[in-house]
Amino acid sequence: MANHFDDANREYVIEDMFPRRDWLNYLWNGNTVLCLTQFGDGNAFTNLGSTNRQIDAGVRYLYVRNRKSGKYWAMNRNFNQEKFDRFECHVGIGYHTIISEVNGIHAELTFMVPMVGRVVMVKAVVTNVSKETLPLDITFVCHPTVVMGPHTSYGEGHKEEGMNALLYTYQGYKIPKFYDDVVLGASRPFDGYEVSEQRFLRGHRTYGNPLPIEKGELASKGSDFDGSYVGALMHRVTLKPGEKFDVVYAYGATNDLEEAKELVSSFASLSRFDKEMASAKEKAKEYDECFHLSSPDPILNSQVNLWLKRQLSLGKDWGRIYGKGFRDVTQDCTAFATLDPALARTRILEILKHQYEDGNPIRMYEPDFNYPYNDGASWIPAALYAYLAETGDKTILDEKIPYLPGTSEEHYDLSDSFTYRAYQGTSYQESVLEHVKRGMDHLAKTRGEHGLVLFLGGDWNDSLNAAGLAKKGESVWLSIASVKAFNEWIDILHFAGKEEWIEEAQKTKEELRHSILSYGQSDGHLIYGFTDEGKAIGAKESEGPTIFLNPQTWAVLASLAPKKTLEGYMDEVEKRLRCPFGYCLCNPSFTKGDDTIGRISYFKPGLVENGSVYNHGVAFKMVADCLLGRGDKAYETYRMIRFDNPENPDNGMEPYAWSNMFVGPEDKNLAGYAPMSWITGTAGWIYRALTQYLFGIRPTLDGLLIDPVLPSSWQEARATRRYKGTLYHFHFVKGKETKILENGRAIPDGLLVPDGRKERFIEVIFMAK
Amino acid sequence: MANHFDDANREYVIEDMFPRRDWLNYLWNGNTVLCLTQFGDGNAFTNLGSTNRQIDAGVRYLYVRNRKSGKYWAMNRNFNQEKFDRFECHVGIGYHTIISEVNGIHAELTFMVPMVGRVVMVKAVVTNVSKETLPLDITFVCHPTVVMGPHTSYGEGHKEEGMNALLYTYQGYKIPKFYDDVVLGASRPFDGYEVSEQRFLRGHRTYGNPLPIEKGELASKGSDFDGSYVGALMHRVTLKPGEKFDVVYAYGATNDLEEAKELVSSFASLSRFDKEMASAKEKAKEYDECFHLSSPDPILNSQVNLWLKRQLSLGKDWGRIYGKGFRDVTQDCTAFATLDPALARTRILEILKHQYEDGNPIRMYEPDFNYPYNDGASWIPAALYAYLAETGDKTILDEKIPYLPGTSEEHYDLSDSFTYRAYQGTSYQESVLEHVKRGMDHLAKTRGEHGLVLFLGGDWNDSLNAAGLAKKGESVWLSIASVKAFNEWIDILHFAGKEEWIEEAQKTKEELRHSILSYGQSDGHLIYGFTDEGKAIGAKESEGPTIFLNPQTWAVLASLAPKKTLEGYMDEVEKRLRCPFGYCLCNPSFTKGDDTIGRISYFKPGLVENGSVYNHGVAFKMVADCLLGRGDKAYETYRMIRFDNPENPDNGMEPYAWSNMFVGPEDKNLAGYAPMSWITGTAGWIYRALTQYLFGIRPTLDGLLIDPVLPSSWQEARATRRYKGTLYHFHFVKGKETKILENGRAIPDGLLVPDGRKERFIEVIFMAK
Repeated sequence: MANHFDDANREYVIEDMFPRRDWLNYLWNGNTVLCLTQFGDGNAFTNLGSTNRQIDAGVRYLYVRNRKSGKYWAMNRNFNQEKFDRFECHVGIGYHTIISEVNGIHAELTFMVPMVGRVVMVKAVVTNVSKETLPLDITFVCHPTVVMGPHTSYGEGHKEEGMNALLYTYQGYKIPKFYDDVVLGASRPFDGYEVSEQRFLRGHRTYGNPLPIEKGELASKGSDFDGSYVGALMHRVTLKPGEKFDVVYAYGATNDLEEAKELVSSFASLSRFDKEMASAKEKAKEYDECFHLSSPDPILNSQVNLWLKRQLSLGKDWGRIYGKGFRDVTQDCTAFATLDPALARTRILEILKHQYEDGNPIRMYEPDFNYPYNDGASWIPAALYAYLAETGDKTILDEKIPYLPGTSEEHYDLSDSFTYRAYQGTSYQESVLEHVKRGMDHLAKTRGEHGLVLFLGGDWNDSLNAAGLAKKGESVWLSIASVKAFNEWIDILHFAGKEEWIEEAQKTKEELRHSILSYGQSDGHLIYGFTDEGKAIGAKESEGPTIFLNPQTWAVLASLAPKKTLEGYMDEVEKRLRCPFGYCLCNPSFTKGDDTIGRISYFKPGLVENGSVYNHGVAFKMVADCLLGRGDKAYETYRMIRFDNPENPDNGMEPYAWSNMFVGPEDKNLAGYAPMSWITGTAGWIYRALTQYLFGIRPTLDGLLIDPVLPSSWQEARATRRYKGTLYHFHFVKGKETKILENGRAIPDGLLVPDGRKERFIEVIFMAK
Repeated sequence: MANHFDDANREYVIEDMFPRRDWLNYLWNGNTVLCLTQFGDGNAFTNLGSTNRQIDAGVRYLYVRNRKSGKYWAMNRNFNQEKFDRFECHVGIGYHTIISEVNGIHAELTFMVPMVGRVVMVKAVVTNVSKETLPLDITFVCHPTVVMGPHTSYGEGHKEEGMNALLYTYQGYKIPKFYDDVVLGASRPFDGYEVSEQRFLRGHRTYGNPLPIEKGELASKGSDFDGSYVGALMHRVTLKPGEKFDVVYAYGATNDLEEAKELVSSFASLSRFDKEMASAKEKAKEYDECFHLSSPDPILNSQVNLWLKRQLSLGKDWGRIYGKGFRDVTQDCTAFATLDPALARTRILEILKHQYEDGNPIRMYEPDFNYPYNDGASWIPAALYAYLAETGDKTILDEKIPYLPGTSEEHYDLSDSFTYRAYQGTSYQESVLEHVKRGMDHLAKTRGEHGLVLFLGGDWNDSLNAAGLAKKGESVWLSIASVKAFNEWIDILHFAGKEEWIEEAQKTKEELRHSILSYGQSDGHLIYGFTDEGKAIGAKESEGPTIFLNPQTWAVLASLAPKKTLEGYMDEVEKRLRCPFGYCLCNPSFTKGDDTIGRISYFKPGLVENGSVYNHGVAFKMVADCLLGRGDKAYETYRMIRFDNPENPDNGMEPYAWSNMFVGPEDKNLAGYAPMSWITGTAGWIYRALTQYLFGIRPTLDGLLIDPVLPSSWQEARATRRYKGTLYHFHFVKGKETKILENGRAIPDGLLVPDGRKERFIEVIFMAK
């Protein structure tokens, strides 16, 4: 059971069938997302306007039955805990393959979402590795889902005449069709099929022992009505020793018979599968040149070169899947601008459409979520900065973008629920630069009695959602984030030649700094803010947490104070928030519900915002460490939240996809457990922390700044980075003081100014601190 | 595998573990419903205002592990299809017991819902029937459900200190508590427990082989967060040969710790269990005297004496569970007035509150469903008649009841969805008699160009829901139902001495009769109606069905025409709607969606209203047969839709609870299959068809009318009936002509007029036809 990274093949290979929780992989295109476990089961769905519709659920098994012995089993799932001769789940970038061997049969079951289409492709290759000829029934079973409300009598599953496919249709009175049907086809004529789960599992059997599989007799007739569907396709073959059988299954969402036929003929095809697989493998390389490193830590190499990019790509393409958070998209942008600047441009222009005329954006769109969060605007400059730093493309600044009509306040919805609706844009348009200015003006305008930015319904900390509803509570963290945003905004204004706006920005920023330092400190650290009632949150005297992580780390990110002060804050972090597997978001957790604080206080201590090791926050901390020159701390922190932390062995996290959190140490039953992988802003921030801050290869508006703080235990590392058309080759070597050299000559300020060359070779002497 | 009725114990005993679909039993009190399969698994829920909240889901197993051999299994569920030495599921009235024997262990697992409380009680008695002393781990596992939206972090499962129970709590920000918690306790201190399903099934195991059961080691700690809960309680015992271990588990919904403690101390108790069991057994007898028969058909005896009453009782207490349909409650009332007249009175007074001021009732309440169905008022007279005929209690007629404010039309909701809201009653009140009159006036007023009652959104046939939305389409069936209602209404008016209203009622009725006979006939049968466009539905020339069952049968129920004409209609039924397992609701079925008809046309042919053998409709047909003196036909029809019809062996229906339908013969894959048991108005109508029409012991406003049409194959039968304080003993004997005798003297018109005697003995000579 040697799970391992296989960088040469761009795979992670799972051999342990039974991690603490299922390990997930995601495959997707613009319309379809496929989620799979190490066994290949899971759910697929397709996007319909602002909602998603499930295509299948859970069950995806390849059964093999030996007609001679009567023995049967699933090649990709040892239902009876039997030992397989071989079991490997190859987590690929764009595909997912389960290779298994048992009872003389070798199988490869590969799942893929092709480049386009509302469809899942599955290829099975079954090989007789025994010494005798084997008569086999090979059956693929999945669980097509067709929305069955309000009347199951509207639906039907059947084999469609003239098609080598099963069709599950749904057409009801006054129900517009919108990809309601599912079709499942195969590349070779099948010899039996089943559509009814009730019939398939009759006799209270399970997917571990379906009678039709046991007997090798599928009902091969249509229907269901009061149960769920299955999609089972059986091929009856005889394989000589060494002989193999291959088939491609395809299933997806369609509107009518024509589309179903088209889907099956296009995708249930061996040649199409091979073509799509070649495309997937080619596409998997697309971000190689953006950044590639070779360090003494092979896992770090795998994560940076492949998997963080991959996880970040899910966010870049699908947001948070259940919706697109304004702050989530902007943050992801900030990271993926280095991978895919064209998409970053598209996303920036898209998100600014979701800003009200008063400059404040909606919290989430598609579907819309309009609780009065007040931090949206503070994320815009960083995203824009990242795009500009990567491309230098000033044309984006003049792009005209509409606003959402009216003010954010007019549209606030305290019901804490999603709205599914068409985009509510207005024809009133302004330039990107003016959009950002309105955002910054909004932050400047919505300040409270301490001169700090108002909480309203919350900030990055979603769950502090009641501290400012009366429009009095102020957020110290959001004020710091605003200082950081003003830093970036001022840089952008210089870059854009918009000098006339700088003075006001500078003034607001200094006011904010002053207010934060005057009212935001407590006992050597920064508090989180004040409630509507004026109670300090995260202060020495507070009930619940007496310190929060983010104000300290963001003070560093915002260059809020002299280095000594910042180091003091970060020392408090080390002292008070560290646990064996990371840094808690706050401590101690809230232990009783407080309606002047919000839902965070109702969460169980140790969960999510209430005291977990929230990896997104830990990534901020890594950046702060680096900015303070504490590279060893940053690297140590990364190792603490990595899957292979020996202090937290049973964390359950995929090695190739970060989880949202580790449950905090206060939850004695779940401490260290890592649920909720893939769908988190953590990936982008860790990626930036490692590449731009630990390695210190940081794009700025002036060029590529080289500012490494590599671990003192390292002697050497290499990295390549594509930047504005030049491929930079970095060679890092430990030395006595930091020096950036090109052809033996020191680069002033470590700033590599683009000069159009194709390649440049940079020697980086990094200091052991 | 000899499933059988056990009338002496008031049980049905299931020995076949694997019917086509799970066989259900329902147990309930005023706040809790428990649904169980032959294995005892299923869902329980409790009512909260107009919604229901689940208490547990699916899983209910009693595992036994032999600590010596390491072998383990579930006593009530042979997960590995192994043969048990004994397996019996005793479907009781108010309890449900699984008796099993395997591996030297005998177990009785009994489920019960006590008389009051939001709670389920489970008693396990485990006996060592082997010859050696056995060390055993005995573990009960269920699946408590706590509503987890919007944030799972709000919830927690744990063992509560100082309680012999597991508590699953949920308390979120701005979420009012309303029986959100679940508690699971045991009558004896337990030796291990589990709350997390993820942990319980870790390693991709199933309930067939959970590792903690296999190892005899439950984690015995709290939590879950990203998975589901389980409730597992383990007792570690050692039983000598013959020794037994008994324990009572109780689980239910609570608001706080105090309620949880109270629930456990009250219900997780052996003595309380025994007391509740005694109450349940006593309560099971409550309707014995209402009607009891002894015929040559033992299954008919079991069904009438026990099971139809039982099924009817679920409807009487819980409506259709998902809501209370006006026409459903009135119809059930019509039947259960003979069992529980006091409740019938309560229900009549309750339903009339859901009538708008224009006399038309809302289609469904709790939750409200306001699609413009137009048949509501036509069901009121029958319910009132049944109550009056059973009791003679005229005081109900003067009870003052409010209306829903405004007219039904103002409140129509075409969205076809439920509204969860508090009762919208008004202070405007009128007497019951005036309520009925407004209803009858509404029917009279809403007539179309043929003088027939308007369809609007539909009638009994829910799914003809688009034929009359433009207020032009007319329903022949509803017009016939109105004639029947006027018949009953006129009888009630005579009874109430309200002669001044009779003339108008008579006039409207005759107009309706005239219109029906003038415009409603086609090709020897009655059509169903006309669409808004004037197209006939169910006529010779119609697309889709050319005949519907209900207009024919209800013509007989309404005495619409001379007997010859009625016999003609019913001959058409025999000719055109009969199939081997009953009579189809229409034929041929709609095969393509038609927006001038409604959703029925989108249903798959053979399903529900679109051509199934809809048992509710077949029960009407049985009554019509009887009224025409076709007792043999009625009895044959009953046998055709009974579970043991040899022409339809694999129908899947519980012998003790009727299903809503048999899938019609046009659905070649599902023909004859009987889904959807228990929750249907069928039970009440079959009960009435058998007792009041086949046996012909029919309460009227003048007394008990005896009008039997018993099968010609019978020689003799007996029945007892409690009516207005008198217990009647009937002895039916086949003869040459029908005669009703008391002490040898003929009873004029077969009408038994109450005279205050305690018992009367009636000899009924029935004619072989």
